[in-house]
Amino acid sequence: MIQIGIIGYGYWGPNLVRNFYGQKHCLIRAVADSRPDRLQILSQLYPSIHRYSDGNDIINDPAIDAVIISTPVFSHFPLAQKALMNGKHVLLEKPMASTVNECEILIELALKKNLILMVDHTFLYTGAIEKIKEIMDADILGNIRYLDSTRINLGLFQPDINVLWDLAPHDLSILRYLYNEEPYSVNATGISHTMNDFENIAYLTINYSSGFIAHFNCSWTSPVKVRMMLIGGDKKMIIYNDVEPTEKVKIYDTAYQFKTAEEKKQILVDYRVGDIFVPKLNNTEALASVANDFLNSIQESKLPRSSYKIGIDVVKVLEASDKSLKRKGAEVII
Amino acid sequence: MIQIGIIGYGYWGPNLVRNFYGQKHCLIRAVADSRPDRLQILSQLYPSIHRYSDGNDIINDPAIDAVIISTPVFSHFPLAQKALMNGKHVLLEKPMASTVNECEILIELALKKNLILMVDHTFLYTGAIEKIKEIMDADILGNIRYLDSTRINLGLFQPDINVLWDLAPHDLSILRYLYNEEPYSVNATGISHTMNDFENIAYLTINYSSGFIAHFNCSWTSPVKVRMMLIGGDKKMIIYNDVEPTEKVKIYDTAYQFKTAEEKKQILVDYRVGDIFVPKLNNTEALASVANDFLNSIQESKLPRSSYKIGIDVVKVLEASDKSLKRKGAEVII
Amino acid sequence: MIQIGIIGYGYWGPNLVRNFYGQKHCLIRAVADSRPDRLQILSQLYPSIHRYSDGNDIINDPAIDAVIISTPVFSHFPLAQKALMNGKHVLLEKPMASTVNECEILIELALKKNLILMVDHTFLYTGAIEKIKEIMDADILGNIRYLDSTRINLGLFQPDINVLWDLAPHDLSILRYLYNEEPYSVNATGISHTMNDFENIAYLTINYSSGFIAHFNCSWTSPVKVRMMLIGGDKKMIIYNDVEPTEKVKIYDTAYQFKTAEEKKQILVDYRVGDIFVPKLNNTEALASVANDFLNSIQESKLPRSSYKIGIDVVKVLEASDKSLKRKGAEVII
Amino acid sequence: MIQIGIIGYGYWGPNLVRNFYGQKHCLIRAVADSRPDRLQILSQLYPSIHRYSDGNDIINDPAIDAVIISTPVFSHFPLAQKALMNGKHVLLEKPMASTVNECEILIELALKKNLILMVDHTFLYTGAIEKIKEIMDADILGNIRYLDSTRINLGLFQPDINVLWDLAPHDLSILRYLYNEEPYSVNATGISHTMNDFENIAYLTINYSSGFIAHFNCSWTSPVKVRMMLIGGDKKMIIYNDVEPTEKVKIYDTAYQFKTAEEKKQILVDYRVGDIFVPKLNNTEALASVANDFLNSIQESKLPRSSYKIGIDVVKVLEASDKSLKRKGAEVII
Repeated sequence: MIQIGIIGYGYWGPNLVRNFYGQKHCLIRAVADSRPDRLQILSQLYPSIHRYSDGNDIINDPAIDAVIISTPVFSHFPLAQKALMNGKHVLLEKPMASTVNECEILIELALKKNLILMVDHTFLYTGAIEKIKEIMDADILGNIRYLDSTRINLGLFQPDINVLWDLAPHDLSILRYLYNEEPYSVNATGISHTMNDFENIAYLTINYSSGFIAHFNCSWTSPVKVRMMLIGGDKKMIIYNDVEPTEKVKIYDTAYQFKTAEEKKQILVDYRVGDIFVPKLNNTEALASVANDFLNSIQESKLPRSSYKIGIDVVKVLEASDKSLKRKGAEVII
Repeated sequence: MIQIGIIGYGYWGPNLVRNFYGQKHCLIRAVADSRPDRLQILSQLYPSIHRYSDGNDIINDPAIDAVIISTPVFSHFPLAQKALMNGKHVLLEKPMASTVNECEILIELALKKNLILMVDHTFLYTGAIEKIKEIMDADILGNIRYLDSTRINLGLFQPDINVLWDLAPHDLSILRYLYNEEPYSVNATGISHTMNDFENIAYLTINYSSGFIAHFNCSWTSPVKVRMMLIGGDKKMIIYNDVEPTEKVKIYDTAYQFKTAEEKKQILVDYRVGDIFVPKLNNTEALASVANDFLNSIQESKLPRSSYKIGIDVVKVLEASDKSLKRKGAEVII
Repeated sequence: MIQIGIIGYGYWGPNLVRNFYGQKHCLIRAVADSRPDRLQILSQLYPSIHRYSDGNDIINDPAIDAVIISTPVFSHFPLAQKALMNGKHVLLEKPMASTVNECEILIELALKKNLILMVDHTFLYTGAIEKIKEIMDADILGNIRYLDSTRINLGLFQPDINVLWDLAPHDLSILRYLYNEEPYSVNATGISHTMNDFENIAYLTINYSSGFIAHFNCSWTSPVKVRMMLIGGDKKMIIYNDVEPTEKVKIYDTAYQFKTAEEKKQILVDYRVGDIFVPKLNNTEALASVANDFLNSIQESKLPRSSYKIGIDVVKVLEASDKSLKRKGAEVII
Repeated sequence: MIQIGIIGYGYWGPNLVRNFYGQKHCLIRAVADSRPDRLQILSQLYPSIHRYSDGNDIINDPAIDAVIISTPVFSHFPLAQKALMNGKHVLLEKPMASTVNECEILIELALKKNLILMVDHTFLYTGAIEKIKEIMDADILGNIRYLDSTRINLGLFQPDINVLWDLAPHDLSILRYLYNEEPYSVNATGISHTMNDFENIAYLTINYSSGFIAHFNCSWTSPVKVRMMLIGGDKKMIIYNDVEPTEKVKIYDTAYQFKTAEEKKQILVDYRVGDIFVPKLNNTEALASVANDFLNSIQESKLPRSSYKIGIDVVKVLEASDKSLKRKGAEVII
């Protein structure tokens, strides 16, 4: 029986509690939050869970085997570091930490102590991404040419991070999970409409040596919610529309292929437009699979799907995007 | 009776002929195209129109008052220059020319000779853009914060220009028509999947001194056709979805407004989500209105809606985007 | 403090418990269900609620003031009758009972004993129907000409009732709530694809003396879920699409109006197609409002919105539809 | 070279002219219409076609081999009868004629004279219906259980026929083409909101001995255009949404299957929800294929796809629907 402590019971905390509550071989021993009203809500629903006002009480509780950290990004590193030092497995909310350096220290510590260090990139456990991964692993798309993602809605302006740090980790973790090549460089542009200089609209391009390109459009200020990703191969293409209730993933038997030509000017492009296939997706709640993967990884000492490797790679891109934003969109080599 | 000559009878030429054919006070005297099969198609539908294999025959025909140039971009300048020198009014397909310098020479010539010089930015004459213009002129949106456009489909790779020069002129002319501020700088990123180095996917950001931002996502390699533009104000927001058959323009009574705060860190953002209004749009074919505006401008010596001013401003942004692409996305001041 | 007993903890029971649990001035004292596994689920979530295996224990519990009956239709009457005889207020799941006669006996009993008798027609409490009611009460649609509803999906075949008794009560209660005229007659057709002769696809027309007409298309065997209702007036029309996540109600400034003509053959119909208005809807969970209305009606001895009057009128139409189905679609006067 | 005469140049006439104009082995010799303005429009577009103000001039023109009759329904029979008597092949607009008896007389005459008698049920030649036919012929759907069609919009009220005679022929011909069983009976209900007693909203059920059922919802008074057909089999189901620009036909790997059970009351239904397949459809204009089939049938003396057999079967159902409407929805055996 793995005993769990959860630090932070804000927006995401109740989902974490509910999903870990339903897992076998695990017990939620305590939840910490500095806001009394949040703990009050917890106590009504789960009277048996211990309540702490300080996360350190969880980190210091010797009965706790694993800590889940669901707090603002800047506090990820100090809390996770202490937890690992105290010998506890750690599941961090995304993004993993505020800097690549912080990620590296945490990873080193986890490896030294032989502890699981996982990041909650929930989307990797959705039926949609599992199906797309399956399709791409089976080489159905051919050579992958681009990934283009739009993730916009009327969202809560975060007070401490910009919109890329808030929304892009979803797409960056998906990209990293689906496509293996190391990114070469990034460009980021954007605008802040508040006085704190955190961009509420931002655009990120990731460039790759192979000619693959990825682009991300993130905004907290759209009147409608759009969650759309296109993945283009030279055999087939995918549209993943997460707002669709049932037909989230569509595989288009559509392709373009350029032929070799003597003269550079002479382009010969073959087009093909064909059938569309809409696969049935697994409906399991993704966060339940996250919980399951975390617990299994602890028990079997294995690397979880949403490992620290994906976690640090996401932060690498975000850190580079900050640099590019400061340099007014100039290319930043990763 | 204004006598018209049309140079180029390719993809767009038949639409030009059909729409000018239906105008009063105008006669299509001749059409020129070097491809015999194109002229053959013309002769079946319109036996009364003269057919030339060389555009210069139109420019030199003294009976012709106005020339429409619907040819590849690189030929816009020499043809338009000769036509203006010969005292003919000119309607150019978009984009106006290959460089800002070419545009300037043409404008100077037209002004000196007191001739109409117009660019066929057809979208400015659609019911959708007319309605959006009306709404924005009535200050219904409040302070405009951003414009975000996606224009992607499985399109014909152009052999001589990249995807921005091919698709963005539509959106850039709309932006210029709807929003008055001069752009400050651009960033452009993209990729070419062919060997001629013309980008088939490209992303363009336009930065403004006021904090307004515009972004354009253009691609010839999407499995689906997307034609979507968001315009966000601090009172209301618009979504213009040109793929929708009837509900193209939606006005959202949705807004975000940040309050002044002592501390920079403390953001206070007010959100409002309200009703949606879908106005009925005028259904007149836009190109018929283009034809009408061109002919009226000639008769009344007035500036047409899609004037050379919009034409050159579009080319300014495109030229700057080329520079930014070459500098790997770095900011280029316009 | 009103003490509540709930009979039946199947599909809908957990929603009833959750929503009454959140109400002030009320306490769920006990839940009854004959299935031990259902009570087991209840005990995990709400350990403080008494559990009975027999609904009669609830009816006979003197501490209970009000009984909610969420059981198969055939058992509504005997349970409700006993509960009313024992002096308890009653909230019945829809449809109210198996026959009009049963409804009449229950109503008489409730009136004699001065008890609240309410039917859970949940849809009357949704933001969508509240908004449509508001629009129709303000006479925005003009003379109402028709209501047309499609309610189909791949649904659970009910073992004891046909698809009309299962799905149409939603639409029939909406119709009755929105439109006041007494129906004149019904026609019903349909088919059973199982051996128990309960139709799994059925079509119902309700005829009115005024020329208003209502039609209902119900099926358990559609590959997609459709929940669409059209309401046509001679000034405006409404489409209520319950499957839409946000834009459920659209008001079309569209109308047709026939002019008086001397000759019968000569029809002069005026058409108008105009703007569309999509009102923001209240998002409160409808069942919470049902609970609130039931409790308020008990406390203030008032008629709830979803009163026994609507309940019996729905059963009148259903009973007539059964007769029409047996008479192979022939008109049955109500 | 087959010489064609077309009677009626109203709404559909220009489409007929344009599509027959493009066919090989055929020449449009003359078009007749009593309205001078219609002939004026024709003369501008096709100056070489003879123009008659009286359809009899076409029927009596010895140079004409085949007559296309695109006039109001009541005139189909007299015109077609005369044309056949004069030895001309006939293509009739849908519906074939006003009564079954008229259809029979025309068929007998065509057979006796060895002439082609075809009805323009255009939908049978669309890519969508061709694909659905292919799927059903390959027995992919299993046993067909139902067909359900909605064909509504804000349409022109016809002065001489009700909405079923106007809109249902499309769906009835599709049904007849796709599904072979003879219908057993019909029920029809509806309402007229004008004074001429022609229903502008009507509902039609067709009953079959096998347990298959078909239902049609037709209206001229919907604020939106809906063209949706569901076809349910016990292996797979199809949704044909003709309003969709590209994804018109979707095949759902969804089914329900009831198992044999000892007791009648005990229903055991197996559900399956699976992938969706969206086949690419042929984009050829359907009316061009109609023209081609008519001309080929003349040359090869073969039965066209949209034969008089389908034509008369459509009229049989319509005639029976009129009887049912008069009998207030009662079943009418065909």
